[in-house]
Amino acid sequence: MDFPFSRIKGGVGAPQGFLTSAVSCGIKNPASDRLDLALIYSENPCSSAGTFTTNRVKAAPVRVSQSNLRKGDLRAIIANSGNANACTGVQGITDANAMCDAVAKPLGLKRSEIGVSSTGVIGLPMPMSRVEPKFESLIAGLGPKNGADVAAAIITSDTHPKEIAISFELGEQRVRIGGCVKGAGMISPSMATMLCFITTDANIPSESLRKSVLECVEESFNRITIDGDMSTNDTVFVLANGASGAPQIKRNSKECRKFREALCWVMLELAKAVVRDGERCTKFVTVKVVGAKTYLDAKKVAEAVCKSALVKASWNGGDPNWGRILHAVGYSRARIREELVDIHIGGKAACVGGLQSATPMDELRAAVAEPEFEILINLNQGNADYVMYSSDLSPEYIDFNRSEYAYWKQARKDGLV
Amino acid sequence: MDFPFSRIKGGVGAPQGFLTSAVSCGIKNPASDRLDLALIYSENPCSSAGTFTTNRVKAAPVRVSQSNLRKGDLRAIIANSGNANACTGVQGITDANAMCDAVAKPLGLKRSEIGVSSTGVIGLPMPMSRVEPKFESLIAGLGPKNGADVAAAIITSDTHPKEIAISFELGEQRVRIGGCVKGAGMISPSMATMLCFITTDANIPSESLRKSVLECVEESFNRITIDGDMSTNDTVFVLANGASGAPQIKRNSKECRKFREALCWVMLELAKAVVRDGERCTKFVTVKVVGAKTYLDAKKVAEAVCKSALVKASWNGGDPNWGRILHAVGYSRARIREELVDIHIGGKAACVGGLQSATPMDELRAAVAEPEFEILINLNQGNADYVMYSSDLSPEYIDFNRSEYAYWKQARKDGLV
Repeated sequence: MDFPFSRIKGGVGAPQGFLTSAVSCGIKNPASDRLDLALIYSENPCSSAGTFTTNRVKAAPVRVSQSNLRKGDLRAIIANSGNANACTGVQGITDANAMCDAVAKPLGLKRSEIGVSSTGVIGLPMPMSRVEPKFESLIAGLGPKNGADVAAAIITSDTHPKEIAISFELGEQRVRIGGCVKGAGMISPSMATMLCFITTDANIPSESLRKSVLECVEESFNRITIDGDMSTNDTVFVLANGASGAPQIKRNSKECRKFREALCWVMLELAKAVVRDGERCTKFVTVKVVGAKTYLDAKKVAEAVCKSALVKASWNGGDPNWGRILHAVGYSRARIREELVDIHIGGKAACVGGLQSATPMDELRAAVAEPEFEILINLNQGNADYVMYSSDLSPEYIDFNRSEYAYWKQARKDGLV
Repeated sequence: MDFPFSRIKGGVGAPQGFLTSAVSCGIKNPASDRLDLALIYSENPCSSAGTFTTNRVKAAPVRVSQSNLRKGDLRAIIANSGNANACTGVQGITDANAMCDAVAKPLGLKRSEIGVSSTGVIGLPMPMSRVEPKFESLIAGLGPKNGADVAAAIITSDTHPKEIAISFELGEQRVRIGGCVKGAGMISPSMATMLCFITTDANIPSESLRKSVLECVEESFNRITIDGDMSTNDTVFVLANGASGAPQIKRNSKECRKFREALCWVMLELAKAVVRDGERCTKFVTVKVVGAKTYLDAKKVAEAVCKSALVKASWNGGDPNWGRILHAVGYSRARIREELVDIHIGGKAACVGGLQSATPMDELRAAVAEPEFEILINLNQGNADYVMYSSDLSPEYIDFNRSEYAYWKQARKDGLV
């Protein structure tokens, strides 16, 4: 690691003073005993910040959480997988509020101190009859468990839980940041289809935290895309409880910059983990655009390349198809000149001045055969750059997403539709 | 047909005075005897108009044709499939010009009277050594053949040639419009990845023709999407030679409107044929957005829905997944209010006011099981509307587009790379 942080065990439960719990409700499938309801709780009051999907269709828990977060004092997060509680109208809001109330009361908190998140199928009501009986054991289970239970309970089509924790010196004191994330499908910038929960025992006022969170999300979760579909449920929550005993971080201080750097690193690692575990993906591709006239030109090029179905299909096939990359550069609406564009794949020149390079095809194919590689696109027109993280698109992705009819059948059985 | 036109046999060769020819050069595969080089020639001078890809990376034949079209007097079109002559630099321009010269000289035309189009793999030089020996037989083969040879020679991954011809009364005289198109992959609005050639024996000045072509393309080819990838080679050419003997169409006359109506109908039929024959597609979906505040809002919604990988995967799976449609409506950046949105699938209400309708699921599934159906999205916020034509996205599409390595290997054998 090229930074002064140490990796430590666990995720959202790793920072001091955070307790976690998770139980199985059978939200998606009553016959399953998979964890699907999770709780994060801070023993101390917290500063908090968050970001949410910019989709105009927002899931009920997003609307409720946006309202609750206003004061910046969230102290607990309740989250479920299996049902997104999206496109569920007034009933959805009622259910999301009920989830907040169910944990607020026994924990002695106000409803507005609870963040709520849901992820899963859209358009079907929450099967609250299966969730409600589990709140008691959820709360009873709270303990210092490092957070792996939460990471496991929030995943859907992810192949594995994704969490991370680090510690580092802040002034005289050691502080910790832990986080977990779920991703897999409906992943696109601004923001990704995902839930991400981050805890820290640093002591930072909510206004400074909010600023750091916005900057770090811009450099991490807003830089990834799997399928270009922006979700209704995307949520990032960050809770800071000060339990490390470290002094309060002052605005614009050296400590503030260091904390922000650490938070960004954690978010970027989690964002990359989402891409690496994208639905039925086989490649992790870093697309770096340099030499653009402006930041926005660089961004447009990166987004067009990362979202092109044909480019992504070629990555899936291990084909170093620079022609398709260049064609996406061309339709990006960025100001580019074909004859100036260089494309490097895995460090090898594939296209120079808009034309095929002299690099032997076998070398380019070897680069794309790797599970992770970088595409460097130099527009040779200026000094602006932008980086994004993307995946391939596989036949299996489409196959996997062909039908959610089974969920509807379960909802029908539950009397919800 | 709800219009006063008659379908007639053939395509670009159906109007009076147009001769066609096609030969096999083995451009993509020397062992194949598939037609891959086509010629359309008018015995009389023509008015002409065209539109081209808005991709900033433009294939050499697009650049050459844009220049040649400037006077609006194209009289012949030379086109090949198997190689797009895109991202081929100065050599590409030389090759495209050579194709024009090779037909201009024997036909007694100027180079600037020739339109040239190529479609196929990007980034590999044209195998001119296999094309050049065939020009003589191409020209010798010119005859009144209705155009099926051209329609067959320009297709690539299309499963079948696509052509159409109609005749109708214009004033006292019968005139004809014929056309052919190739599509299949890299299909996205502004414009589609395709070549479309249209001929007519109507007598229309090039300025009026140009105006009609722009309007008709906007209502047809700019309304379709298969995979959201905008090609480097998209081209529409329209040649009008007046050979019907009908009097010249006057600007803004009743005849001008009728001609425009007929031209739009031909283009829309060809555009729909492209979607119906999209690469490995199984569904033809009309997405109609109504009740938008503005035309642009309606357009944004239609484009987001038609381009969503998840929506298209659900169509492939026969899943009437209105939640995914609504989520794409939400991220379209159009001004929408979730609680006002109604979605009808195949005439059945699937979503009313942002919520699941009472329509039995079996009825919705039956609608999506059809090979062609309509999605009607009512935003209930205004009077603007927009319609687009789209396809599903299949696992087979990704599989089909995984690698173009075989073409590179052939180019290597040809000594071109």
